[in-house]
Amino acid sequence: MYQGGSDEFLGPQDPIVCASLDFGIDFEAKVAVITGDVPRGCAPDRALDSVRLVMLANGVVLRTLIPDELARGGGFVQSKPAAAFSPVAVTPDELGDAWMKGRVHLTLQSAWNGRKVGMCDARRDMTFHFGQLIAHLCKTRNVRAGTIVGSGPVSNKGVEKKGKTEWPNGYSCIAEKRAMETIQDGQPSTEFMQWGDTIRIEMKGRDGSSIFGAIAQEVESMS
Amino acid sequence: MYQGGSDEFLGPQDPIVCASLDFGIDFEAKVAVITGDVPRGCAPDRALDSVRLVMLANGVVLRTLIPDELARGGGFVQSKPAAAFSPVAVTPDELGDAWMKGRVHLTLQSAWNGRKVGMCDARRDMTFHFGQLIAHLCKTRNVRAGTIVGSGPVSNKGVEKKGKTEWPNGYSCIAEKRAMETIQDGQPSTEFMQWGDTIRIEMKGRDGSSIFGAIAQEVESMS
Repeated sequence: MYQGGSDEFLGPQDPIVCASLDFGIDFEAKVAVITGDVPRGCAPDRALDSVRLVMLANGVVLRTLIPDELARGGGFVQSKPAAAFSPVAVTPDELGDAWMKGRVHLTLQSAWNGRKVGMCDARRDMTFHFGQLIAHLCKTRNVRAGTIVGSGPVSNKGVEKKGKTEWPNGYSCIAEKRAMETIQDGQPSTEFMQWGDTIRIEMKGRDGSSIFGAIAQEVESMS
Repeated sequence: MYQGGSDEFLGPQDPIVCASLDFGIDFEAKVAVITGDVPRGCAPDRALDSVRLVMLANGVVLRTLIPDELARGGGFVQSKPAAAFSPVAVTPDELGDAWMKGRVHLTLQSAWNGRKVGMCDARRDMTFHFGQLIAHLCKTRNVRAGTIVGSGPVSNKGVEKKGKTEWPNGYSCIAEKRAMETIQDGQPSTEFMQWGDTIRIEMKGRDGSSIFGAIAQEVESMS
């Protein structure tokens, strides 16, 4: 878990503005929750009750800035600029059966330049449910109403097929695709985002309707 | 540089509430500034112009939780709970000559259990001035009005005396005192804060008056 900036957020259709492609611009399609007040030391089950709203997030990441920040040990400052959120956040009860034990039992769709690259099950491989994540955060502090807690990019484990690993559900960030390529081919071949690239993140309910609306952003040069 | 939580701050006389002394409770006496809006990619000199207010801070740190968080690479979440700030913040011009090139040219006083342990020069050994710190923060993002940027604990370099290093100005956090002891004696001997311990942080102007008022906190058990 890391702390992100909260002084600037991006709207769901705001451009991802960046000074250089050398920063390695990546998206991260996630589920996020907004909490009420949570007291210090709250246990996971009770922390889960503090979830007021559920939404989608795009955690923009500048991959090539990460190694230096990891080496300094202070977490991600320059490498994780402003995040974007879905136009709609819903109360957990709006998700019905799809909100189960702190996880969202639906498919998170990511389309990069109009091509579906991720159809990831947001529940199946989520190691810690949102109650556990919030409990981790509030171990030593009170967590105040309006706090946003993200899941990390939604990812599904690979499956073995004829002695090779495949990922039929795709990916929710390019770094993951590059990791798949490295496992399969010994090196990554997919580049990070280019100027004008688009990313669309959406989740549909069992009736096929979009629950949160879409995050739909374009990468734009600062100059 | 790391990102701290901003959902909960402590008032200048609020207790430092903690579940266990095993967390290694420490204070960090710092100078902090509050910025206006700063555009992405702003240079240090212009970033310095964005400083609207100057104040003092106590960055509470739970030292024994740091190694695990460093190992995970995501920065300080559990190990740096809510920070406290001085009762008064002043505009840079109120500091007169003491605000020089992005640094405060005055002595930061720390008194632990009523005993003066730090009389540290806040300017002399500050490696990066506030304009440089803000520029680092805004390299890849816009920084929004109201953002708080802290200096880190104020610290002065040791001086050589008869072949030994001494620190006549004392310290602004216990971890630093323990590092001094390790250098001098091979191991630390000062324990972290105990229940009921107090920390008072203050800075006086050249006329002897307290500029920001005092941060005066007591360590309190959660139970």
